[in-house]
Amino acid sequence: SLLVLLVGAAQSGPGAPSRYTPDWPSLDSRPLPAWFDEAKFGVFVHWGVFSVPAWGSEWFWWHWQGEGLPAYQLFMRDNYPPGFSYGDFGPQFTARFFHPHEWAQLFQAAGAKYVVFTTKHHEGFTNWPSPVSWNWNSKDVGPHRDLVGELGAALRKRNIRYGLYHSLLEWFHPLYLLDKKNNFKTQHFVSSKTMPELYDLVNSYKPDLIWSDGEWECPYTYWNSTYFLSWLYNDSPVKDEVVVNDRWGKNCSCHHGGYYNCQDKFVPGSLPDHKWEMCTSLDKGSWGYRRDMNVADVLSESEVISELVQTVSLGGNYLLNVGPTKDGLIAPIFQERLLAVGKWLQVSGEAIYASRPWRVQREKNETSVWYTSKDSTVYAIFLQWPEHEVLYLKSPITTSTTRVTMLGLKEDLKWSKDPNEGLHISLPQLPSSALPVKFAWTVKLAGVG
Amino acid sequence: SLLVLLVGAAQSGPGAPSRYTPDWPSLDSRPLPAWFDEAKFGVFVHWGVFSVPAWGSEWFWWHWQGEGLPAYQLFMRDNYPPGFSYGDFGPQFTARFFHPHEWAQLFQAAGAKYVVFTTKHHEGFTNWPSPVSWNWNSKDVGPHRDLVGELGAALRKRNIRYGLYHSLLEWFHPLYLLDKKNNFKTQHFVSSKTMPELYDLVNSYKPDLIWSDGEWECPYTYWNSTYFLSWLYNDSPVKDEVVVNDRWGKNCSCHHGGYYNCQDKFVPGSLPDHKWEMCTSLDKGSWGYRRDMNVADVLSESEVISELVQTVSLGGNYLLNVGPTKDGLIAPIFQERLLAVGKWLQVSGEAIYASRPWRVQREKNETSVWYTSKDSTVYAIFLQWPEHEVLYLKSPITTSTTRVTMLGLKEDLKWSKDPNEGLHISLPQLPSSALPVKFAWTVKLAGVG
Amino acid sequence: SLLVLLVGAAQSGPGAPSRYTPDWPSLDSRPLPAWFDEAKFGVFVHWGVFSVPAWGSEWFWWHWQGEGLPAYQLFMRDNYPPGFSYGDFGPQFTARFFHPHEWAQLFQAAGAKYVVFTTKHHEGFTNWPSPVSWNWNSKDVGPHRDLVGELGAALRKRNIRYGLYHSLLEWFHPLYLLDKKNNFKTQHFVSSKTMPELYDLVNSYKPDLIWSDGEWECPYTYWNSTYFLSWLYNDSPVKDEVVVNDRWGKNCSCHHGGYYNCQDKFVPGSLPDHKWEMCTSLDKGSWGYRRDMNVADVLSESEVISELVQTVSLGGNYLLNVGPTKDGLIAPIFQERLLAVGKWLQVSGEAIYASRPWRVQREKNETSVWYTSKDSTVYAIFLQWPEHEVLYLKSPITTSTTRVTMLGLKEDLKWSKDPNEGLHISLPQLPSSALPVKFAWTVKLAGVG
Amino acid sequence: SLLVLLVGAAQSGPGAPSRYTPDWPSLDSRPLPAWFDEAKFGVFVHWGVFSVPAWGSEWFWWHWQGEGLPAYQLFMRDNYPPGFSYGDFGPQFTARFFHPHEWAQLFQAAGAKYVVFTTKHHEGFTNWPSPVSWNWNSKDVGPHRDLVGELGAALRKRNIRYGLYHSLLEWFHPLYLLDKKNNFKTQHFVSSKTMPELYDLVNSYKPDLIWSDGEWECPYTYWNSTYFLSWLYNDSPVKDEVVVNDRWGKNCSCHHGGYYNCQDKFVPGSLPDHKWEMCTSLDKGSWGYRRDMNVADVLSESEVISELVQTVSLGGNYLLNVGPTKDGLIAPIFQERLLAVGKWLQVSGEAIYASRPWRVQREKNETSVWYTSKDSTVYAIFLQWPEHEVLYLKSPITTSTTRVTMLGLKEDLKWSKDPNEGLHISLPQLPSSALPVKFAWTVKLAGVG
Repeated sequence: SLLVLLVGAAQSGPGAPSRYTPDWPSLDSRPLPAWFDEAKFGVFVHWGVFSVPAWGSEWFWWHWQGEGLPAYQLFMRDNYPPGFSYGDFGPQFTARFFHPHEWAQLFQAAGAKYVVFTTKHHEGFTNWPSPVSWNWNSKDVGPHRDLVGELGAALRKRNIRYGLYHSLLEWFHPLYLLDKKNNFKTQHFVSSKTMPELYDLVNSYKPDLIWSDGEWECPYTYWNSTYFLSWLYNDSPVKDEVVVNDRWGKNCSCHHGGYYNCQDKFVPGSLPDHKWEMCTSLDKGSWGYRRDMNVADVLSESEVISELVQTVSLGGNYLLNVGPTKDGLIAPIFQERLLAVGKWLQVSGEAIYASRPWRVQREKNETSVWYTSKDSTVYAIFLQWPEHEVLYLKSPITTSTTRVTMLGLKEDLKWSKDPNEGLHISLPQLPSSALPVKFAWTVKLAGVG
Repeated sequence: SLLVLLVGAAQSGPGAPSRYTPDWPSLDSRPLPAWFDEAKFGVFVHWGVFSVPAWGSEWFWWHWQGEGLPAYQLFMRDNYPPGFSYGDFGPQFTARFFHPHEWAQLFQAAGAKYVVFTTKHHEGFTNWPSPVSWNWNSKDVGPHRDLVGELGAALRKRNIRYGLYHSLLEWFHPLYLLDKKNNFKTQHFVSSKTMPELYDLVNSYKPDLIWSDGEWECPYTYWNSTYFLSWLYNDSPVKDEVVVNDRWGKNCSCHHGGYYNCQDKFVPGSLPDHKWEMCTSLDKGSWGYRRDMNVADVLSESEVISELVQTVSLGGNYLLNVGPTKDGLIAPIFQERLLAVGKWLQVSGEAIYASRPWRVQREKNETSVWYTSKDSTVYAIFLQWPEHEVLYLKSPITTSTTRVTMLGLKEDLKWSKDPNEGLHISLPQLPSSALPVKFAWTVKLAGVG
Repeated sequence: SLLVLLVGAAQSGPGAPSRYTPDWPSLDSRPLPAWFDEAKFGVFVHWGVFSVPAWGSEWFWWHWQGEGLPAYQLFMRDNYPPGFSYGDFGPQFTARFFHPHEWAQLFQAAGAKYVVFTTKHHEGFTNWPSPVSWNWNSKDVGPHRDLVGELGAALRKRNIRYGLYHSLLEWFHPLYLLDKKNNFKTQHFVSSKTMPELYDLVNSYKPDLIWSDGEWECPYTYWNSTYFLSWLYNDSPVKDEVVVNDRWGKNCSCHHGGYYNCQDKFVPGSLPDHKWEMCTSLDKGSWGYRRDMNVADVLSESEVISELVQTVSLGGNYLLNVGPTKDGLIAPIFQERLLAVGKWLQVSGEAIYASRPWRVQREKNETSVWYTSKDSTVYAIFLQWPEHEVLYLKSPITTSTTRVTMLGLKEDLKWSKDPNEGLHISLPQLPSSALPVKFAWTVKLAGVG
Repeated sequence: SLLVLLVGAAQSGPGAPSRYTPDWPSLDSRPLPAWFDEAKFGVFVHWGVFSVPAWGSEWFWWHWQGEGLPAYQLFMRDNYPPGFSYGDFGPQFTARFFHPHEWAQLFQAAGAKYVVFTTKHHEGFTNWPSPVSWNWNSKDVGPHRDLVGELGAALRKRNIRYGLYHSLLEWFHPLYLLDKKNNFKTQHFVSSKTMPELYDLVNSYKPDLIWSDGEWECPYTYWNSTYFLSWLYNDSPVKDEVVVNDRWGKNCSCHHGGYYNCQDKFVPGSLPDHKWEMCTSLDKGSWGYRRDMNVADVLSESEVISELVQTVSLGGNYLLNVGPTKDGLIAPIFQERLLAVGKWLQVSGEAIYASRPWRVQREKNETSVWYTSKDSTVYAIFLQWPEHEVLYLKSPITTSTTRVTMLGLKEDLKWSKDPNEGLHISLPQLPSSALPVKFAWTVKLAGVG
């Protein structure tokens, strides 16, 4: 079959280690490669033909022609000649100012340890020259470049891990619609489009992460997910380091796969027992770039840092999305937010990267103090500066060797044991401009229990 | 497989007639449905994305990026921004003035009994919504219409037979290039593109004729042609009436299939023993519309009629091509030529439609007198008006019942037997404007041997 | 004023010949330069922004937004986004295939002795870089070329006279509308647009002819026409050779100016006593190119030659229009017609160029025999080949020296005097293909009265 | 002349007050209408065809074709077909998302008391339907709207004063180039373009302010500036309230006219004796929108507020520029900055609007403390929070009635007199999030000398 040709035969010689079998118990038993939990912070990038109308949302096509929302129909009527189709947008996706090294530099300055890039969203347009998506890919139409390849090369130069977002379904692909009509008893779409592309992506770009999406209408058996994953874990060129998420079929999410995303922007109430990732978007209203975004729609610097802190404290990774313009530019407001995170991480990264959840994640009865840890060190990150400049931490148990410092300052902070429990920390008396960060300050506790 | 689903199971009940097997001896043994030989004159239409640059030839893409001809590269450099691709032309193929009933009316007025339409040329763009050519077809991009379907409906209303041109190869399809790299040992392209589309065309549009092309790089075994044809002849909805040509694999042309085209614009030296068709284009330099066509590049009225006469005399059909503009218009110069043929056929059609070659095709030592016949009637078509208004025909043997008339005139013509052989016919003494046609007059001979 | 600067001071030294004064009696007294009457046949070219929509007529803008015709409004709604304006068409007027030497070659092959080119139609777009039409001219927008200059240079190389069509009014020019609101009591438009442009055209391109148009809404006093013409005749660089027509103000046409056009496509019933010109268009429905032209809308070869013969016989010049595409191409059907005229003139030009009307223009009770003359020679042009091949001319009075030939044939024709009046000419017994022309044959009569 | 018609006759009845004469001594003697000095803060908007390429700067055309800078030439070569002109950009200036009420709401939220809008930049494209800029204005081409009128109506609804930016020169206007060639001895451009447009603007839109620019190549006598201003001051519909700046001819700037801008971004070293305005742009590299702007190019919130404070303290107005996109959107980063100013002014506006410079503008030997005043009240604005939370002000002389408060807080601040001079103020001990502003805090001093 086509797959065999694109993929090469699976080879497992004598004496090979035991192999994963294409079922969830086996696949779920694979340990998560360590780099992912250590990375903590990544940048998500949604880019595609939806960046051309750049209005409403990256679900533009669906809202317009799937659901027929009046606002989208009106938008088309007002701005395009009658009969203009989504496919006609393709040539306008120019990417003319796409400089992958500038993106990589920005993401590095933001402190991101990995980047997840849309290789193909639900619209089906592939951002690399997929041999099974002829004339509906970024090499044949529009950018005339291998966007996936170029970004990957730039990221690797800066030692940033590279994740590939991939939508299993394509809203309007005729073979997908054919399978759907057959109640997904047939797999024409999977065998001639989805699987060839997934294998091609892995073999061509050797991703560190596969961020699967668009799984929700069909069971994993339709998608052949377990077969793909067993190949990925056993025989692919990235079998040792690759990480995947949990969107591999209806009802898989939050239950099977690698780490868990559960639903978009998921926030757990307490510490989950499985590695997870919170994905969210700087533009609260869209993942793709839209021209109608106002500043009120953009997460503020403090919202972003709060979410990052909370997520890491609860054992998650934080994946923060930006949508570039059709020209390949990242809006200054997004640059500003990303750089603010990066500046904060310069000081506070010690409490974030490679940290582990502590025995307490959030201070009792407090919403603004969060803990992380590293070996025996505990970090308390407080989102509000307390009045009278004394921080009260109830959960740590002081010892004779307890020492308290603030990340970004040299001198120890004075503290005293509370009669009941915890400790009171005297914060430094400095004008806010002299503090190491403007928001979400971290005290580092050594010698506490 | 996908094919089975698109096609439905082959059904041959008990008592079915014996079936064609997928090999040339069996397939070649099928009698040609009678309508084709009777039709004699058809119109060929080349329309596709090549009609957008509309410059040079319908092989634009190949000349530009396959061969890299400097003139084509310069054309692109002069007229488009850097990086513009062939795929980017798609949305500009608007077909905005395509009125299929006007085309059908014109072709009928031209006297055409069948029309052959490019459903897909070597560029791979399908003029119908092919489910395996997503976003590279006339429904998703450009016209946003089913061109194949609309033209077919209009032709059927006028009882014009409908033929579908289909290119087996696609110059730049990634799967075709993959198979080529494998020396055509693999058939990824055939199984996922060519065959699904051919079956879809037959089932959807029920063509009277399949005009295959683009076969030359691969053997018929690569193309699975014999399997397709056996299905077409045994089980397809058009199995009784459908006609095909001879381009089904390397070295097939002029040897296997239905009627023979041999090479483009082929003219045999003498009467072939197999039904054939001469295809040619009104624009001597291109099959697709090109803006740089000058009137000197267009076949003249007398050239067209001469070729038609000669072709029919030698047992062939004459398929005359026009290339519409990207807007869907047929240039007035093409209209003029087609209507001239139609006007000539109004008078002379009796000697053409449903005629058979006579025992002599061309008068001895003459290039301007050609014969056709129908039952015992013989038609002599002379391309030059003889001086002194006497036509000398050597080949017919006169009898006592010989009668001579001119098509379009009522009265008998006087004639006399030549002492050696043949007869001398006194042509009418009329000003040229009073003659039934301006060129290629026909005398009808009854009672000759 | 601006005019003085553009024009330079009028200079008339001592001893200068008496000068024309800016009133009709004086201006009308100027003899018409001889070249014009000798030229007989010219080509008219309508080209402008109307060639971009290329639909309906060159009055597109007026029909759409002046009159609001539903068909034009629908055309815009169907094919352009809401709000698209006529001005937005400008950049699409590319002229990318405009090769003025090819045009000149074609017009020469057509036998044209002069060419009249639209420097500016009622839309106001100037086909040269007018300094008072900034960003609405062919240098700033669209072609980015001086079309008027380039065509002029090419024509002069072939010794073809160059005429400039110029519309006085501009439908939508704000200053024209302002003057109109003031009942043409003000002349803002004339002083800042019309006159600067007319002077600029004359000084820059030194035309042989000015074909004025768009005069009909205002008196010549509004247009300052007599002042312009007195300058043109007295002081301009083309004062000796320039010819003008008669459209210089309301009610001027057919009464004042140089030669008379009267209305478009005007045909006089009998010989006028003032030099005139019949202008007409190959496309019967439009002067500008329109994509929706069918072959039935195009004057046939015999219609064109008939009109030319009739016009010259009645003392007129024949100005035949073509509308090039926005690309700068002349449609093959137009090429074909022009070349047919040229071919006919190769043989028959002797009876046309520099001929004078004879004492009889049209044979009595005949519509198909027309006379011209040159000195004592008389030419009879007959549009229908007579039955029995004998041409009967009633008007010429034979003498002892009468000789009759046919243009294009060497030998004399036999003739006999009719008992009553005129003569009978025996035409040659040749197949039509052997005759010098296919239509409108000329017999030349020497020694007749 | 055209002017008289557009303008109406100047009327000054008997008993009229004495009138300004068209000379600088008279014009300069006019008192500045009071609203302007009270307004203090305005928003500047640069919008035009330069917003289409949106690259480099609003001087795009000049850099590209005036100076021929290689980077601009390369930009055009890389992104447009050969021959593309600046005029061709016009139709792409769509303004499709221009909602003037949203702009007005944003500018009001920013605390702006006036807005200055580019009616016409050096490119000559008018953002209103100028009758002397046909087909190069926002009604005929591109937006198809009266941008000047629409914005004005929206601003007036919110009682924001409306200023019109107008460039006297137009880089490439042919009549301007003609005058330039004549060393500005002729005034074709002024009489047929500049003056008609200025009068039209005043009569049509009744601006509160005219922000003249583009004056630098010619003396005011060329521009007829003093005549225009005397009309504006004596007879125009805005004669009582209108304010103008100082760019009315070479060497006028900083010497004549209304208030002074001097050069762009001018900052005086000490208190000027003439009302002035500092204009600057949020994008440090451009006044018009450019896609290549990075966040590092944008003035930070604290830079903007510092400049505003310093400018007002020195008696100036602060005019802060944003460049909208060709779609009519104001980038979120600009929204964020404007809203930050507005938020700051909510608290601190008392020290800004309608304030007057104090006897000291900047604290001695300090760069971060600036004074303003209102009647007997003095405001000290300090840009840095002092260590140990004590602010030392040297210049104010305390009295028995001295009271100190901080804008935004209710309670009085404790203070003590310094033995030498000035006073020490104890700032409140609050976390920075509890302070009324994040930056540039204001203490209000009552009863000081």
